Amino acid sequence: MTTQEKVMTTQEVANRLVELCRKSDVLQAQEELFADNVSSIEPAGSPTPVVNSKAAVLEKGKQFAAIIEEVHGNEISDPVVAGNRFAVSWMFDVTMKGQGRQKMEEICLYDVKDGKIVSEQFFM
Amino acid sequence: MTTQEKVMTTQEVANRLVELCRKSDVLQAQEELFADNVSSIEPAGSPTPVVNSKAAVLEKGKQFAAIIEEVHGNEISDPVVAGNRFAVSWMFDVTMKGQGRQKMEEICLYDVKDGKIVSEQFFM
Repeated sequence: MTTQEKVMTTQEVANRLVELCRKSDVLQAQEELFADNVSSIEPAGSPTPVVNSKAAVLEKGKQFAAIIEEVHGNEISDPVVAGNRFAVSWMFDVTMKGQGRQKMEEICLYDVKDGKIVSEQFFM
Repeated sequence: MTTQEKVMTTQEVANRLVELCRKSDVLQAQEELFADNVSSIEPAGSPTPVVNSKAAVLEKGKQFAAIIEEVHGNEISDPVVAGNRFAVSWMFDVTMKGQGRQKMEEICLYDVKDGKIVSEQFFM
């Protein structure tokens, strides 16, 4: 980041994340908005472990994308913002290879620092 | 609860909580919407411990209300709802006895079961 570059506010980061994810550009959102040391925390009981780097988040995202056979629905709320945090609701209705159709409904909580997402946490 | 009584949906519980808390009727909201065994989880590092009953939540609420000298601002977002969960952003700007003025900004996450809030968790 150069000193000329404007640091995005939490609201701006939230709006951009929602804009990209509504278009299913999740990997683009992660590439653009996530800090290098971002933590990603799945719902309690999830087989996917906590990861603590952007590279690991991108890899997890690619693995998830690879098993999606068909997307039936993808609805994300407008963000609610408080200080350096924001939350959205996310409904994702997909058929996954060998696992059939699943409708996932989550609250997703994000922490922002210096204009980048440093933590994502999912509650399902 | 009688069998005639309609169980509120998560969206209805969320709307009612926001309606009451915007009027600063927090104790009324807890009395009306919280399950007897509700868990209340404060932000990481908070001196207030986790409590696991409606009676304890009400007591905590009364203690907090007792130290508030003046409310300068109380803004709550519309809820975002996913399945049996919802979240709001909450900005609370108050002067507390002996502690001066503090502006608190939190994401509040609620879990609903059988039309009652069974967990509240604050991220500040």
